[in-house]
Amino acid sequence: MRHSGVQPLGGAKFKLYCKLQQKKYRDGEGLFLAEGLRTVRELCGSIPDGNMLQALLFREGEPEAAVFDRTFPGKVFTLTRKECARLAETATPSGIFGVFRQQPASASRFAGGEGNSFLVALDDVQDPGNVGTILRTAAWFGASALICSTGTADRYNPKAVRSSAGSIFALPHYGVASLEPELRRLADEGFFIVTSSLDGRDFREFASWPEKLVLVIGNEANGVSPAVQALSHRLVKIPHAGKTSRVESLNASVSAAILMERMALK
Amino acid sequence: MRHSGVQPLGGAKFKLYCKLQQKKYRDGEGLFLAEGLRTVRELCGSIPDGNMLQALLFREGEPEAAVFDRTFPGKVFTLTRKECARLAETATPSGIFGVFRQQPASASRFAGGEGNSFLVALDDVQDPGNVGTILRTAAWFGASALICSTGTADRYNPKAVRSSAGSIFALPHYGVASLEPELRRLADEGFFIVTSSLDGRDFREFASWPEKLVLVIGNEANGVSPAVQALSHRLVKIPHAGKTSRVESLNASVSAAILMERMALK
Repeated sequence: MRHSGVQPLGGAKFKLYCKLQQKKYRDGEGLFLAEGLRTVRELCGSIPDGNMLQALLFREGEPEAAVFDRTFPGKVFTLTRKECARLAETATPSGIFGVFRQQPASASRFAGGEGNSFLVALDDVQDPGNVGTILRTAAWFGASALICSTGTADRYNPKAVRSSAGSIFALPHYGVASLEPELRRLADEGFFIVTSSLDGRDFREFASWPEKLVLVIGNEANGVSPAVQALSHRLVKIPHAGKTSRVESLNASVSAAILMERMALK
Repeated sequence: MRHSGVQPLGGAKFKLYCKLQQKKYRDGEGLFLAEGLRTVRELCGSIPDGNMLQALLFREGEPEAAVFDRTFPGKVFTLTRKECARLAETATPSGIFGVFRQQPASASRFAGGEGNSFLVALDDVQDPGNVGTILRTAAWFGASALICSTGTADRYNPKAVRSSAGSIFALPHYGVASLEPELRRLADEGFFIVTSSLDGRDFREFASWPEKLVLVIGNEANGVSPAVQALSHRLVKIPHAGKTSRVESLNASVSAAILMERMALK
């Protein structure tokens, strides 16, 4: 049974949404694309208001279309099988997409404030899956904001959106042209800069952590830049078990999570 | 300059290696495929002996071929651009592949022993990226083995291999038809079964952990099966910050890492 409210998307909109695969169009339009029932459902459940949802797109015949149309009338559209394949990032498209608004840029930059504040800063974390997972973990541990260097993977990249599991609206996140001045600004506001580094000290040596804290996570292969290391108040590492390690390092989002847990949970 | 030792792979071998994209052929041949310079390099650096490396495949003209040929003479072959595209899992093939032997099955099953032993068991963890990341983290924290239920993603899946970052030879890992009898066997040998569950108690309530321990991680959406929950000695959860959570859950490999760090590091 075809639901009366659900219409085909149409060519002009489809062309626009395809362009959202590229960062410059995402940022230009202030929109981003999410794929897959689980991701779309998580995002629909976490949008601060209905205006953040632009459109929900379903492959023709997809029964979920009617379900979503009851909650978001007028925002649900169908795609042909061919359109789905073009819009999809994966080789086996799920047939379910959402188009959402990005966080407004003006509301993004962290403005400080009283009491506990726990921030996470990414210094050229390149894998979008890591960026999304760190965003999700930061939301779980109550971070006040996520700050991304220019070389960090776009948090609105479809892979990042998928691994963020609906946390993209859960906390403010913003990009900065350069991380050093932003960290200096935060240090001036009383933030303690803690950086994950293989040159650091075992993080368990510190029994307590300052109330205002920025945790900096570096690039997967090269770690944190020397400039950021130099302005850090503390370099910390996660030791491996035993005398020698059987692997070179931990995954960046895993390191971030282990450190966040210790720093954020009281 | 063409290195004299590097020859084209040839059709029969190429057909065989393409089949390694499927689990049944990987298991049948006892081989697996790795893609990308970083992953291949990590695996070459961690193989217990040279026999574990079957072949290294490079796109024609790839300068790294000659470099690897000096270390692994007679094992380096070239692929045409077209062959690369067929063998690759990604839309933008890196042009560098390795074919390795799987761990011998007989050496896999954990046989117990004296003193500290820390095992990780996966109950239908579905995402290969999570399986690979958990393997990597388990190697870092000195786990004695990783045990996988039938519904768990194959750890020799190319995505799992990539996220395991060369740790696939770092510790024994094996699949079991059913997780319950294996956990019961381990419990009979004196292992304490700790299971990650949203119904569990805050893991920080436990100041110490038994020396012989199995950490069980469940499916991303559904958690651990009731049967496994029932035979667990302790259910633990990682609490979120604040009164309400802004996201539903943590990523499975993130939860695993946070719990492993607490349980394994002394």
